[in-house]
Amino acid sequence: MRLYGYFRSSAAYRVRIALNLKGLEVEHVPVHLLKDGGQQLQPAYLSRNPQAIVPSLELDDGTVLTQSLAIIEYLDEVRPEPRLIPADPVLAAKVRAVALAIACEIHPVNNLRVLNYLKGQLGHSEEDVQEWYRHWLLKGGLEPIEEMLPGDDFCFGNAPTLADCCLIPQLFNARRYKVDYDHLPKIMQAEASCRGLPAFEAAHPSHQPDAQ
Amino acid sequence: MRLYGYFRSSAAYRVRIALNLKGLEVEHVPVHLLKDGGQQLQPAYLSRNPQAIVPSLELDDGTVLTQSLAIIEYLDEVRPEPRLIPADPVLAAKVRAVALAIACEIHPVNNLRVLNYLKGQLGHSEEDVQEWYRHWLLKGGLEPIEEMLPGDDFCFGNAPTLADCCLIPQLFNARRYKVDYDHLPKIMQAEASCRGLPAFEAAHPSHQPDAQ
Repeated sequence: MRLYGYFRSSAAYRVRIALNLKGLEVEHVPVHLLKDGGQQLQPAYLSRNPQAIVPSLELDDGTVLTQSLAIIEYLDEVRPEPRLIPADPVLAAKVRAVALAIACEIHPVNNLRVLNYLKGQLGHSEEDVQEWYRHWLLKGGLEPIEEMLPGDDFCFGNAPTLADCCLIPQLFNARRYKVDYDHLPKIMQAEASCRGLPAFEAAHPSHQPDAQ
Repeated sequence: MRLYGYFRSSAAYRVRIALNLKGLEVEHVPVHLLKDGGQQLQPAYLSRNPQAIVPSLELDDGTVLTQSLAIIEYLDEVRPEPRLIPADPVLAAKVRAVALAIACEIHPVNNLRVLNYLKGQLGHSEEDVQEWYRHWLLKGGLEPIEEMLPGDDFCFGNAPTLADCCLIPQLFNARRYKVDYDHLPKIMQAEASCRGLPAFEAAHPSHQPDAQ
């Protein structure tokens, strides 16, 4: 399998964590979102992913899967151990809800292309964009997510799930944009639990071959 | 079960379609997003859904599930017929990818609270907001989604899936904001196939008790 990604993309980062947790090896193909006017906009990549976003997972038969959460659900179906989505339907719904709260409420609004639209088409300052980022990260996202967590070692229970695969990349972004979340103890606990794990460490943006 | 929703929320609309397709009856509890300063911000609702968004599904034992896609996955697990997510893992990934392309790339960026931020905090005109809406709906969303569809009667195959549950509410929004998508024949075909079905018709915003 080949994973088309970008070291700093938090959606690609989610999939790297999931692949590592399941012990699946893939070929990593970097798609640089800033170089060459955006390599994701070139025909070679668009033919695989018409949305022009990363990641994409190319299976050995050439089938291309897109959307990080759909890719992780696929991996969980074809390689169920360790399970990233619990077997119990109610617990599965709670895990997915946290993953979706990150993937739908925080990430899209604070995506590079949205920030670029605010700066470009709408002419906003860095300060406006920083305040936008902070607002949607905390009020729209991490603060309500804190309320959705039971307060276990990881997001849910004593092992990582899909929720942790989504949370850790989002926290990496929070730190990068200097947004504090020390007032959210359950999120801090889940982050501390993941930090020691090789699957999370190896997926970190700074350890990717395309990291600059 | 109780569904907390709002007639015009496309996330609630998705869940209504899924419930109808599965023949599940629920009590509908309206949460008016504009009245009383936003009923979703009142403590009674926040205690169920800290994200202050609709929908929420309250099970008979009081458990509350949130995030429309997580709710539909739950319904598909506890009431598998008719399946909204195909059993085949690759096809499931493709269906989920279209659902997520709508739920993650279009909907959050064009959500009422984001449009309000653009108008309020950032002081933009109706024209700016309309252009923002159109841009993310088409370029960020429906146009690439057209490329992701195989061109069947419905989004995938000859029966509705999770993808159709997400597409139809998004198209309702497109029409409401007067954004044309006649140039997207596969999306038009899926819409035409769903239009005749009672499950979709009964879920339409105009048929909800809280519709004004």
